[in-house]
Amino acid sequence: MSKLDEVYSKLTIRNGAKIALVVLDGLGDVAVASQGNLTPLEAARTPNLDALVRSGCAQGRMIPVAPGITPGSGPGHLALFGYDPLEFEVGRGVIETLGLGLVLKAGDVAARANFCTLDAQGLVTDRRAGRIATEVCERLCGLLSAKIKKLGTNEVLIIPGKEHRFVVVFRGAGLEGPLTDTDPNREGLPVAVAQPVDAANAGQKKVAKLVADFYKAALPVLKKEQPANGFLMRGIAHQPQIPTFEERYQMKAAAIAVYPMYKGLAQLVGMEKIEGPQTIQEQLERYVKEYDTHDFFFIHYKYTDKAGEDGKFGAKVKAIEDFDAALPLLLARKPDVLVITGDHSTPCVMKGHSWHPQPVLLHSACSGSDKLDRFTETGANNGSLGIFEAKYLIRLMQANARMFDKFGA
Amino acid sequence: MSKLDEVYSKLTIRNGAKIALVVLDGLGDVAVASQGNLTPLEAARTPNLDALVRSGCAQGRMIPVAPGITPGSGPGHLALFGYDPLEFEVGRGVIETLGLGLVLKAGDVAARANFCTLDAQGLVTDRRAGRIATEVCERLCGLLSAKIKKLGTNEVLIIPGKEHRFVVVFRGAGLEGPLTDTDPNREGLPVAVAQPVDAANAGQKKVAKLVADFYKAALPVLKKEQPANGFLMRGIAHQPQIPTFEERYQMKAAAIAVYPMYKGLAQLVGMEKIEGPQTIQEQLERYVKEYDTHDFFFIHYKYTDKAGEDGKFGAKVKAIEDFDAALPLLLARKPDVLVITGDHSTPCVMKGHSWHPQPVLLHSACSGSDKLDRFTETGANNGSLGIFEAKYLIRLMQANARMFDKFGA
Repeated sequence: MSKLDEVYSKLTIRNGAKIALVVLDGLGDVAVASQGNLTPLEAARTPNLDALVRSGCAQGRMIPVAPGITPGSGPGHLALFGYDPLEFEVGRGVIETLGLGLVLKAGDVAARANFCTLDAQGLVTDRRAGRIATEVCERLCGLLSAKIKKLGTNEVLIIPGKEHRFVVVFRGAGLEGPLTDTDPNREGLPVAVAQPVDAANAGQKKVAKLVADFYKAALPVLKKEQPANGFLMRGIAHQPQIPTFEERYQMKAAAIAVYPMYKGLAQLVGMEKIEGPQTIQEQLERYVKEYDTHDFFFIHYKYTDKAGEDGKFGAKVKAIEDFDAALPLLLARKPDVLVITGDHSTPCVMKGHSWHPQPVLLHSACSGSDKLDRFTETGANNGSLGIFEAKYLIRLMQANARMFDKFGA
Repeated sequence: MSKLDEVYSKLTIRNGAKIALVVLDGLGDVAVASQGNLTPLEAARTPNLDALVRSGCAQGRMIPVAPGITPGSGPGHLALFGYDPLEFEVGRGVIETLGLGLVLKAGDVAARANFCTLDAQGLVTDRRAGRIATEVCERLCGLLSAKIKKLGTNEVLIIPGKEHRFVVVFRGAGLEGPLTDTDPNREGLPVAVAQPVDAANAGQKKVAKLVADFYKAALPVLKKEQPANGFLMRGIAHQPQIPTFEERYQMKAAAIAVYPMYKGLAQLVGMEKIEGPQTIQEQLERYVKEYDTHDFFFIHYKYTDKAGEDGKFGAKVKAIEDFDAALPLLLARKPDVLVITGDHSTPCVMKGHSWHPQPVLLHSACSGSDKLDRFTETGANNGSLGIFEAKYLIRLMQANARMFDKFGA
């Protein structure tokens, strides 16, 4: 734990305050001429957000990881949960597995895998096996699962994803990552051997042997398949031991998310997954129901990011307006501290995540007012929160919830 | 010393420039609806500050310690003096002692103490002895002082505070803190034994023995007193060796403060205490008189904080207006660099210190103008200084005083 985290821990008072963190995924955007020089937040009609802002909010912008770094969903959310994404690195295999809805245990080693095509010499001729249909992927994973349930004393889990993608999880004692990829990264080369990143690490050596054994057992099963007669593994790493949200912040947390990836990320830090809600209305209604049973509520809304990824400005505007229409459901039982933000920006013009600091709005009895009329990127540039690293957001929420003792006399 | 501090030191040129740092204690505030959506700075009539701003000032906001952390006066001022409050931690006993006007030496161990009530079994029945009158506290401290002047070769100083509060100082060779409290923190428990925080530390062990000996000598003196027949000690720590202000910044500094706590904090870093002035007018007149004898002037004004602590918006507005009325006295002999700020925020609505970044104004021949009309929290959000950690303020003042050489060619 960093010195500063230690100071925060010592100052923390558990006081039962209620905090809601609403993540509009990929919310941040940039104003470009082709979009009328407006961001989706600026273009959207948001009467409820506007009223919230005028009732007294602090605004600012958050750097997800570090200047210029575009985060994936994992680091983006870890930062929002107060875990420095440069300190708590979670392997891509683990994140992919969470995205498929599998519950991992600390120490589980997970890898992303692709089906691929190999020629008679074992050289990779297509790294994605012609992007086979998802049903084919599911059938092949079924074949592998039926054949390989254990390697030595270690459990093996094989879970199909979309098209050529799947994940492999090794579960056993003393396993550790990370390992190098077996993906040679271009066609014409043989499948690489996964190597321990630290040659002296016993756990990594154990996993290197497991990966080799897995190939020995799996390749014969696929031998007659076309085009998917091989596979490549990437991001082989174990789920790190992460101090739980409750340990760090003295709050019992609930995750009200729809997509498995975000439920998984919340579960990674020990939040309780709330199952059931499928729409933002249902999510906010559920928040009200759970109000008395938890202290911290992580509410995740996917559609802003989806529209950004698709480059659909109108769809992103509508996603924001849909959220705005649902917002009164949450305000009916206002938490002591309410934050609305994104995990990163997903500018429509970029059709993908970006490094642009996402706007953030914080409302509490002592947030004060920044005298802004709306919640927008440009307005947030002038807010009292300034531009800060996302990992500090949780500390500002705790401060506004009066959860910190004074530092020094 | 941090790497960056070393760089600053190497670049520093002593050039006799004059710098004045005016601290309006607890200046920062938040705008809430119940106060007409204005902060005291926004509500106050400040013609002299306004004119100063329009003559060309840089503004910004300062994070006293770290995001969300509410500082006491100690860390708040250490940061303003350029000492990272996370690096230079000063125990509560030391700060309390400074507040009572006692001059400590490096190595002195100080503890905050409370008179308390003990039952026949030695269990604490009232941690504050019914908040006895200050006169009773003074009488009891007198009894203890008369009886206990030394323990072994170590000097013992006992100084009464307000109501049940007093401080105990141990002065001798090789003493060190911190130790755990003897305060059990709730009634019904016996007085705890002060333990070294680091069991292997010889200086701490020495102090643990001293505290035990002090109890042995003092409890009999109080035996027949009612209700104050015992006492509890907290924040037992030694005054750290702090490099002096002049060593660090190549400036001879004067502290023009009224309250003992702030004189003490200034003295802790080696500033010279200027005694005499009781009002802000007298303080600013004295600054003019001392202009030629010092390079750096720390001028402390308490009443903004006092009003904030009392939750009195009108009183805080008036405190600001009173300062504004006196300001021309200072401007009559304008320093090369003038900073007006707070050591932290004390929002009226919170009736206490807070973490909200305090506004800061810096005027010099090269500060430039941020094109703002007034000095307010909302305006400062848009200033050229941005939002930065308070420990850097001294560096910005030095830079504006042209005290830094170029870094690199």
